[in-house]
Amino acid sequence: MSRTPFLFDLDGTLIDSVYQHVLAWKEALEAEGVTLSIWRIHRKIGMSGGLLAQVFLRETGLEISEKRLERLYQHHAEAFHRHHSQIAVRPLPGACQLLGYLTEQGIPWAIATSGQIETARPSLVTLGIDPDKITLVTRDQVRHAKPDPDLFVTAAERLGVDIRQSLVIGDSIWDMLAAQRARALGIGVLSGGYSQGELEQAGALRVYADPAGLLHHIDEVSARD
Amino acid sequence: MSRTPFLFDLDGTLIDSVYQHVLAWKEALEAEGVTLSIWRIHRKIGMSGGLLAQVFLRETGLEISEKRLERLYQHHAEAFHRHHSQIAVRPLPGACQLLGYLTEQGIPWAIATSGQIETARPSLVTLGIDPDKITLVTRDQVRHAKPDPDLFVTAAERLGVDIRQSLVIGDSIWDMLAAQRARALGIGVLSGGYSQGELEQAGALRVYADPAGLLHHIDEVSARD
Repeated sequence: MSRTPFLFDLDGTLIDSVYQHVLAWKEALEAEGVTLSIWRIHRKIGMSGGLLAQVFLRETGLEISEKRLERLYQHHAEAFHRHHSQIAVRPLPGACQLLGYLTEQGIPWAIATSGQIETARPSLVTLGIDPDKITLVTRDQVRHAKPDPDLFVTAAERLGVDIRQSLVIGDSIWDMLAAQRARALGIGVLSGGYSQGELEQAGALRVYADPAGLLHHIDEVSARD
Repeated sequence: MSRTPFLFDLDGTLIDSVYQHVLAWKEALEAEGVTLSIWRIHRKIGMSGGLLAQVFLRETGLEISEKRLERLYQHHAEAFHRHHSQIAVRPLPGACQLLGYLTEQGIPWAIATSGQIETARPSLVTLGIDPDKITLVTRDQVRHAKPDPDLFVTAAERLGVDIRQSLVIGDSIWDMLAAQRARALGIGVLSGGYSQGELEQAGALRVYADPAGLLHHIDEVSARD
């Protein structure tokens, strides 16, 4: 039997960047006059930026014009970059080791992120990965954003594997919903700040603290030869 | 029968400041060479700064010297202030209305915060409260920090009410544990970023989105005359 493929989310799953994104969105929304509580932004993170912004604007009843969305993206990117310069975005514990282990074992893996290629690239470099040498799917390459399974389905296609035989590893309930919708198995990590219960309720088969926890218990979800 | 007293936590319960505190602690810890994942900091917030810093240092095996703790506090305060200047700390939805309602109804209420008086004061002003005109207990006024019930017990004493007849309203599991330890009833709010399940598991009788949610459902936990 072929080895179980691993399809990873990026922010909050492999790199420790969720909280910086949350405050960057908060700042961008405030600039548009939207005073959404910060925990509500946190719970929407993991959707793509575009979908996220539309949900925020819809929930607060503001008009969703192209111009306003464009301003939101730009402000978010600028604020995130500023946080980044104060607090270096680091790999989550075990992230590099887990990817190294999979590569070594010949287990197919890919990264499917709701972010754009421009923001994903520096994150991958942080992980010691050459973006051109791995299977990477970014938001700009697919039609629908998470929780639509498009990103993970495309990642599986590029690996030449069956999504229904794959694991989807993510920190947000949107990853877990996408996994279910694609008939993959969802594996949750707590490192994005969702709780174990929330991830399990969204369909996670197992939940670990972070990539180190998953690597430590990898026999629970993937057979060794 | 006398009216049920309300004992409130401040950060994450009445004002939207948890995520700024999280990143400020992250920055302070990084400066000391401690690379703790951000979600782990989030899940410790609500303890007092002093206890928090000691827990972080103990968990990472660093020596807990007075000097190091002092540097941590100062860096955290400076970083929090910087975030504050970029993203105004706002009252959570319904916070002012809830306190106004209690005052109007003659229901005793107090605020018991793990923060120091210097950081609590501007937050109270944000809520439109004169710190000198309410019952307020800060970390520097009690011996033990949350999850020890000292802060809430002292608040009840100052109000002249029985803690065992009181409600403790907080966003963190530390508030809920303190409530249980004092034989008060814990009421959770999601506005600090903990999940409903985590708060319920820590003993919350009921969990609402934020102060607006509590005010909307106040008959569930407190009798009207």
